[in-house]
Amino acid sequence: MRRLEETTGLSRGAIFHHFRDKESLFLALAEDEAHRMAEVVARHGLVQVMRDLLASQDGQPGHEDPADWLGTRLEVSRRLRTDPEFRARWAERSREITSATQLRLARQREAGRLRDDIDIDVLTSFLELVLEGLVSHLAMGLPTDHLERVLDLVEDSVRMHRHGANGQSG
Amino acid sequence: MRRLEETTGLSRGAIFHHFRDKESLFLALAEDEAHRMAEVVARHGLVQVMRDLLASQDGQPGHEDPADWLGTRLEVSRRLRTDPEFRARWAERSREITSATQLRLARQREAGRLRDDIDIDVLTSFLELVLEGLVSHLAMGLPTDHLERVLDLVEDSVRMHRHGANGQSG
Repeated sequence: MRRLEETTGLSRGAIFHHFRDKESLFLALAEDEAHRMAEVVARHGLVQVMRDLLASQDGQPGHEDPADWLGTRLEVSRRLRTDPEFRARWAERSREITSATQLRLARQREAGRLRDDIDIDVLTSFLELVLEGLVSHLAMGLPTDHLERVLDLVEDSVRMHRHGANGQSG
Repeated sequence: MRRLEETTGLSRGAIFHHFRDKESLFLALAEDEAHRMAEVVARHGLVQVMRDLLASQDGQPGHEDPADWLGTRLEVSRRLRTDPEFRARWAERSREITSATQLRLARQREAGRLRDDIDIDVLTSFLELVLEGLVSHLAMGLPTDHLERVLDLVEDSVRMHRHGANGQSG
């Protein structure tokens, strides 16, 4: 909230004048972040969103401001677990990231870069599940040692070619 | 707690007599569940743990009692996020699942069933990250439509062979 006041230069009263309650304010914030996330997905893919999140934890600058995403995603996760009403209101908003991911994968498939033996819906769910795990992992403050290479593996798993597992055949 | 009283047939007082505080009691419970989980990992692998978790959500019986795991894992996740002291105490205990996973993957590699171009530590982190995502996903009550096929993909991603992505070559 304080951060929001600083960012917008508006007083708390003025901000709440626009949003009837904290719930609506948080939803607007989360929707805004989902929108920015969807833009990164459209340009660079969901794995890049994950790389940005990871980099932000290691103190490296990312494409946007992933530390904000992490905070918002965590709060979204918490409310989804505890608040069925929020779950319903969030459902429509979270569609944007899913749609952006599906669209990007469809384009990758057209370009012959995506494996073509698995439905795009399944690949999308896979990437979203890994993102959820990453958010949770980072929130718990667990070590990030292998995670860059894990994300390489995730990216490789949805790609068109994985040459023979030992890298020799193709 | 009530469930624990029912299961053990002991009174709350008797249970607390053994464990000085709720914190120690929860750690003992979580350690016990981690131990049972590690046993399933040793026999069937971490992906099977995930399949059991998923099946328990769909009302199917699993190998053990994954609904318990989900509750415990969630509470572990919550405490890891909010309680640095718990994080330290949990670190040693959670090693058991990681070790069981590494050992199982090492055996699979010896048997030629595991891809050999990626470190076992990275594959272990990958599987643990997906498990974390699954726990979070189920806790949020999100749809499970594609998740069985997602787990097939996860399993396939660590296996020795993925024949040409279109399934024709190999």
